[in-house]
Amino acid sequence: MIKKTTKKIGIVTGGGDCPGLNAVIRALVKAGALYGWECLGIHGGFDGLLTPVKAVPLALKDMDGLLIRGGTILGTANSGRFSAKTGHGQTRRVPQKILDEAKTNFDAMDISALVAIGGDGTLTIAQQMFEMGFPVVGVPKTIDNDLDATQTTFGFDTAVACAVDALDRLHSTAQSHNRVMVLEVMGRYAGWIAAYAGLAGGADVILIPEIGFTYDSIQRKILSREAEGKHFTIVIVAEGAAPGGKGFVTSNKTGNDREVRLGGIGHMVAMEIESQSQKETRCVVLGHLQRGGQPTQWDRQLCTRFGVHAFQMIVQKQFGFMVALKENGMMGPVTLKDAINKIRRVDPAGELVMTARALGISFGD
Amino acid sequence: MIKKTTKKIGIVTGGGDCPGLNAVIRALVKAGALYGWECLGIHGGFDGLLTPVKAVPLALKDMDGLLIRGGTILGTANSGRFSAKTGHGQTRRVPQKILDEAKTNFDAMDISALVAIGGDGTLTIAQQMFEMGFPVVGVPKTIDNDLDATQTTFGFDTAVACAVDALDRLHSTAQSHNRVMVLEVMGRYAGWIAAYAGLAGGADVILIPEIGFTYDSIQRKILSREAEGKHFTIVIVAEGAAPGGKGFVTSNKTGNDREVRLGGIGHMVAMEIESQSQKETRCVVLGHLQRGGQPTQWDRQLCTRFGVHAFQMIVQKQFGFMVALKENGMMGPVTLKDAINKIRRVDPAGELVMTARALGISFGD
Amino acid sequence: MIKKTTKKIGIVTGGGDCPGLNAVIRALVKAGALYGWECLGIHGGFDGLLTPVKAVPLALKDMDGLLIRGGTILGTANSGRFSAKTGHGQTRRVPQKILDEAKTNFDAMDISALVAIGGDGTLTIAQQMFEMGFPVVGVPKTIDNDLDATQTTFGFDTAVACAVDALDRLHSTAQSHNRVMVLEVMGRYAGWIAAYAGLAGGADVILIPEIGFTYDSIQRKILSREAEGKHFTIVIVAEGAAPGGKGFVTSNKTGNDREVRLGGIGHMVAMEIESQSQKETRCVVLGHLQRGGQPTQWDRQLCTRFGVHAFQMIVQKQFGFMVALKENGMMGPVTLKDAINKIRRVDPAGELVMTARALGISFGD
Amino acid sequence: MIKKTTKKIGIVTGGGDCPGLNAVIRALVKAGALYGWECLGIHGGFDGLLTPVKAVPLALKDMDGLLIRGGTILGTANSGRFSAKTGHGQTRRVPQKILDEAKTNFDAMDISALVAIGGDGTLTIAQQMFEMGFPVVGVPKTIDNDLDATQTTFGFDTAVACAVDALDRLHSTAQSHNRVMVLEVMGRYAGWIAAYAGLAGGADVILIPEIGFTYDSIQRKILSREAEGKHFTIVIVAEGAAPGGKGFVTSNKTGNDREVRLGGIGHMVAMEIESQSQKETRCVVLGHLQRGGQPTQWDRQLCTRFGVHAFQMIVQKQFGFMVALKENGMMGPVTLKDAINKIRRVDPAGELVMTARALGISFGD
Repeated sequence: MIKKTTKKIGIVTGGGDCPGLNAVIRALVKAGALYGWECLGIHGGFDGLLTPVKAVPLALKDMDGLLIRGGTILGTANSGRFSAKTGHGQTRRVPQKILDEAKTNFDAMDISALVAIGGDGTLTIAQQMFEMGFPVVGVPKTIDNDLDATQTTFGFDTAVACAVDALDRLHSTAQSHNRVMVLEVMGRYAGWIAAYAGLAGGADVILIPEIGFTYDSIQRKILSREAEGKHFTIVIVAEGAAPGGKGFVTSNKTGNDREVRLGGIGHMVAMEIESQSQKETRCVVLGHLQRGGQPTQWDRQLCTRFGVHAFQMIVQKQFGFMVALKENGMMGPVTLKDAINKIRRVDPAGELVMTARALGISFGD
Repeated sequence: MIKKTTKKIGIVTGGGDCPGLNAVIRALVKAGALYGWECLGIHGGFDGLLTPVKAVPLALKDMDGLLIRGGTILGTANSGRFSAKTGHGQTRRVPQKILDEAKTNFDAMDISALVAIGGDGTLTIAQQMFEMGFPVVGVPKTIDNDLDATQTTFGFDTAVACAVDALDRLHSTAQSHNRVMVLEVMGRYAGWIAAYAGLAGGADVILIPEIGFTYDSIQRKILSREAEGKHFTIVIVAEGAAPGGKGFVTSNKTGNDREVRLGGIGHMVAMEIESQSQKETRCVVLGHLQRGGQPTQWDRQLCTRFGVHAFQMIVQKQFGFMVALKENGMMGPVTLKDAINKIRRVDPAGELVMTARALGISFGD
Repeated sequence: MIKKTTKKIGIVTGGGDCPGLNAVIRALVKAGALYGWECLGIHGGFDGLLTPVKAVPLALKDMDGLLIRGGTILGTANSGRFSAKTGHGQTRRVPQKILDEAKTNFDAMDISALVAIGGDGTLTIAQQMFEMGFPVVGVPKTIDNDLDATQTTFGFDTAVACAVDALDRLHSTAQSHNRVMVLEVMGRYAGWIAAYAGLAGGADVILIPEIGFTYDSIQRKILSREAEGKHFTIVIVAEGAAPGGKGFVTSNKTGNDREVRLGGIGHMVAMEIESQSQKETRCVVLGHLQRGGQPTQWDRQLCTRFGVHAFQMIVQKQFGFMVALKENGMMGPVTLKDAINKIRRVDPAGELVMTARALGISFGD
Repeated sequence: MIKKTTKKIGIVTGGGDCPGLNAVIRALVKAGALYGWECLGIHGGFDGLLTPVKAVPLALKDMDGLLIRGGTILGTANSGRFSAKTGHGQTRRVPQKILDEAKTNFDAMDISALVAIGGDGTLTIAQQMFEMGFPVVGVPKTIDNDLDATQTTFGFDTAVACAVDALDRLHSTAQSHNRVMVLEVMGRYAGWIAAYAGLAGGADVILIPEIGFTYDSIQRKILSREAEGKHFTIVIVAEGAAPGGKGFVTSNKTGNDREVRLGGIGHMVAMEIESQSQKETRCVVLGHLQRGGQPTQWDRQLCTRFGVHAFQMIVQKQFGFMVALKENGMMGPVTLKDAINKIRRVDPAGELVMTARALGISFGD
C-alpha cells in the first residue's frame, strides 16, 4: 500500500433508492483508500453540491456493514433544484445557473472526480455536467434493468428475487382458495422484472409494457387452466403494461421515482378479471418492498465490481464514461452519451419470451 | 406400533388460508397412521360434506413436503352454502337443513371424528355441529392471534416475520429518501401483528384497533424525530385501526376473509400524514403476502404439536374441544364453547404496549 | 420526556456471541435515553472493568441498525483474567483480587448499575459481583435455552431457525442420493435445539443428551424406513448426546464456548451408521453458523423486551435479579441466585418428546 | 396446442445433487406436453437404463411445486455399474457391455431422445453413449461452475448465495470474539464459489485452487488488519486450494461427489493460522448445505431456459449437443465433445481477482 499524493473523489447517489447503492460506495472508498484517495459523500443527490454544500468525508470505518445494507447512506432525491425531471424520452436540461453554482462549489472543494450513481435521469444530468467540465464517471443503477448500455444494472437481481418470493407466497393462497392472484411489480417502460420473475416464479400470465394485452386473452388462459383442473391462476403485471394492444403507456409522471398509489394497473387488471371470470381475484402491489432490503449475493458482487472499476476509470482519467457490464461478462467503459436515453426492452420475439411461451405462459396477447 | 381396528378421521380446513395448515394435516395423518387410523381430506371447507361429498383419502406418501408448504391441500372457502358468515360478535347459525345434509353424509362415510382447523368462524360452526352430534375436535388457526383460549395460534409467527421483513425493506427506502413509510398489516379486531412486528421491526408509530389514534399525535412524533435529526418515520398500521379515538371500527365485511382492496386504512393514513407533515409519504399494503409462503420453524413445530394432540384427543374421545397452547407452554384442551367468540386483544396498559412506549414508540394517542 | 438527574448504566456482554445481544443493548440505551440515563459499553466482557478500563459511551445514534445485527458491538470473551471457567455444575469463583480491582474501577466511573448479558457462566460471575456490592441486573442469553429460570432465552429461536433451514437443505440431498444425513447442532447439556429443530424440520432421528441412544436402535429406524420405501434418513444430533445409555456426557471443556473441532459426535454417529447400515452417510456440523447472523423477529422482540425490563429493574433498584420470561408470557424478575446453576433439560417423558414419538420419530433409545 | 404423433423423451440426472435439477425436469415435461411429447424419468442415474429398467412416466401434475424443490425426484448416483468414475482429467470409459445392455433396453422403450443432466462425469458418459447411437442431449450442472463450454452452470448461484449467507453469519462471531473464522466451500478444481462468495461476502482472504497460498502471506494479512484496528479476519477456502504454491491439488477421490469428511483443507488452514497467529481460529465446513435447498430465482429461470432449450434441440434432432448459456446471454448448443473435459478456472490475472485485490483482499500469495 503506497500512499500517493492525496486526491479526492466526490460520490453522489441520485434517483430512487436501490439495493446495492451502499455496496458501490463501499467499494469506491475501500479501493480508493488503498491508493491513498479520499472520498467525500455528497448528500441528498446533486443538490448537495449547491450552497450550502453537503459533503461529508467517508472514512474506511464508516464502510463497516455497508456491503449488505439497503438504500444509500448519502440520501437521494427525486426532486429538488437540480432535478432534471427526466424520464425516458423526456429530457429537460438542468438550468445553467444551477450547474454553475455546483461547479463553483465543486472546484472549491478540490475534488478530482465525481462519481454519479443512478439511473437514466441521474446519468443524463451527469452527461450535462461532463459537458461543462465536471470530471464525471457514471455507475448504472436501475431496479428495472432497462439501460441498454450495460448487460445488467444492479438492484435488478434483488428486485426479481423479491418478486419471486411474493409469487411463491401468492401461489399457496391462490391454490387454497381457487383464486386468481395478481402481483404488480415495477417496470414502467420495460417488463424485465415481470418477465424474469414470472418465469422463475411459475406465473401463468405475464403482462409487460412491450406486449399489449387483452382481457379476452387472459380469460382464455384462465378457462384453459380450469379445463386442465387447475382452478387458480397467477398473473404478474409490470406497472407500465397496458391493455388494448397499445404496447406500452407513456407515463405522465414527472419524477423518476414511480409513485405507488391507489388504482394502479394491478388493481385494474384484478377487477376486470374478476368481472369477466367470476372468480375471486385479489391483487398485491409489491411497491417499495422491491427497492428495499439487503442486496442479493449477485448484486453485492456486481456493485463491488462496479465500484472498483469506477475507481480505476478515475485513476485513468476516463471521464464522461459510465462503467458497464459488457457482453463478455467483463467490466468496461461506455460513454455517458451513448448510455443515456437508450432504453433496453424485452424483445417480444426474443428467447426469454419464447421460453415462457414454450411453457404455456400467456402474455395476454 | 400396534395396528388396532381401522378407524377414520375426517379433516377440514376453513376460513382464509394460513401458513401451517398443511403441517397440521401432516401431523394428523402421520400420528394416525402409527395407530392404524386413516384420514380423509374433506375438500373446499365444510361444503365438502354436502352432496356431492368431496372426500379424498390422505396417504402417508401424500404428506411428503407438506411440513413446509404454505396453504392447504384441502382447499378452503370463505363463502358457500355452509358459511356461517360470522365475524367476531356477528354469529349467524348455519341452517339446520345444511347441517342435516352434512350429518347424513358424514355418518354414511363411517368417520369416527372430524377435525376442524380454522379460526373463529370455522370453530363457531364446529361448535354448532358438535351440538347436533358431530364428534368434532378443533384446531385454532388465525393469522391475527386473536383467540383468547390459546396462548397463540399458528400462522401468527409467520405473519409477523413477513411484516418485519417488510419493515426492514422500508427502512432503507425511508432513510434514503427522508420519507414517511406506512405499512398496512392484518388485524381487523386485534393489533397483535402490528404490535409485535412494530416492536421487532423498529417502527416509530404503531396503530392498532385497541388504541384510537389522532393525526395530530402522529404529526408530533414525526416532528420530534425531525428535531432529533431523524428525517424519516416508519408507521405500521393494523387494518382495523381507526382515528378519532373510536378504539376500533366495526367491520361490515360479510366473510371472514379480509378483502385487500383499494383505499384501506394504510392509504388513508399515508395521505393524511403527507398532507399534515408535507413530507413525502408512501404506503405498502402487505395483504395476502402475510398469509402465504412457508411457515417459520416456530409455526412448523406448533402445527405439528397441534396436530398430534388433536389426534390424541380423538383417541380419548374428547369431542367438543379445541386443542390449545396453555400458559405453561403445554398443549391442552378447551371447550369449543369457551373458545369461540372470546377475542384476545392487545392490552393498552399491558407489557407489550408499555415496552414499546418505553422505547419512544408512539401509538398515535 | 423529562430529563432527570443524569445517571449511568454500564453494559457488559459475556460468553459466546449470540443473535440478539445488540438488540438488548439497543433497548437499554433507547429506554435509558428517554429517562435521561447514559449507557457505557464495557468492552471485551468483564475484563473491560479491569485496568486499563475499556468503557465507551453508547450514543443513541450508535444504535442505528443494531436491532438486526448479529453478535455484540461490545465484544465478548470466553477466557481472560475474569473468566470464571464455569460450566453447568463446574463453578469456580473469580479471585477476590480481580473483583476488587473491578470494583475500584467501577466506583470511579460513577455508574449506577451494571447490566450483565450472558449465560450461566456470566450470570454466575454477576451473582458473585452482586454479593460484593455491585448493583447488578442480569439478562439471560444462551443459544441452548437451558436456563431453568426463564421460559426461553434469546438466541434460541434464531438457532433453531438456522438448524431447520439446514435440515431442509439436507432433505433434498438425502432423498436424491438415498443417503443418511447427520446434522450436528449445539446443546452440550440440553437438547432443546435438536428437539425443536428435529420436530420442525422433519427429522427421523433426534439424539439429545437427555436420552442415551444405541446404534442398534438407529439402525432399526433406518431399516423400518427402508421397509416403507423411504431410502433416506435424517438424523439430528446435539453435540452433548452420547451412545450407550449414559444419558449425557460430562464435558471436560474448560470454557463456556463450545469448540467446534474435528471428530465431534456428529462425525462419530455418521461413521457408525454407515458402518452398520452400509448406506452412504454424510455429516454436517452446523457449528458457528447457528450463533451468527440476524436474529429472528421473535428474538428481536424478546431482546427488546428484556432490555426495556432490565432498565425498569434498574430504575426500581432491583439489583441481584435477572429479567426472565415468566410462564404467563410476561417479563418479571428472578434472583440471580435462583437463576444460576439450575439447568433446564428436555423432559424425556414430556410433551415435546411424546409428540415426536407420536409421529414415529426415534430418539435412538 | 396441436397434438402431434406422441413421442417420448427419457430424462436422467447424474452426479451429485444440485439445486435446480427438478426445475430442468419440470421445464422439459411442461414444454414437451404442449407439443404432445411424453417424458419418462429414468431413476437412479444411468443405471436406471440397465435391467431391470427403472423408468416412470412423468405426468404434468407431478410437476407441481418442482420449480422450487431442491434435489432431483429421479434420484442420482455417484457410483454403480454405469459409473464412469471420472473426474476432470481422469476419464475412464464405461464398459461396452454395460452400454449395450442400456441400448437394448432404451430401444425397447421406444424413446426418441435422452436428456442427460449432469456435470463433467455425466456428460462424458453421455458423449460415449452418443457415439454408439443414443440420441443424447446434455444439460450442464455443476455447483462449481467449472465447465468451460457454458457461461454458467445451474446450481452455482444458489451455492454462492448459501456461502455468502454463511459468511454473513461468521462475520458477527468473528467480530464479537476477535477471531479468525475459516469457511470451507466446494471447488475441487476451480475456485469460483470461493471467489464470488468472498467478494460478495466481504472476506479478507480467499484461497482457491488456481492460486497457491502460503501461511506467511495469510499471517501478514492478519497482522495488517490488526494494525488497522480490525481484530478479526474472515477466510474463505475452496476445498481444492493448497498451500505451497502448488496451484491445486490432484484429488485421488474416485467418485465425482466430494466427500465432506474430517480433516479437510478448512480445518488444516484453521489450525495452522491459529498456531502462527496465536488468535482463536474456528472453521466451518459448509459441505452438503451448499448443494441442498431451494434454488435462487436466477437458478430457477436458468434451469427453466435450459430445459426448454433442451426440448427444442430434441425437436430439431440436434443430438450429441449440450445446451449452453452463450456469451451474449442467449441459449445455444455446443457439442458434448467440446463441452467435456474442458475445465473453466478462475483466471489469476483476470477481472474478478483484480477486483478483489483492489479492495485489499488477499489470495494468500
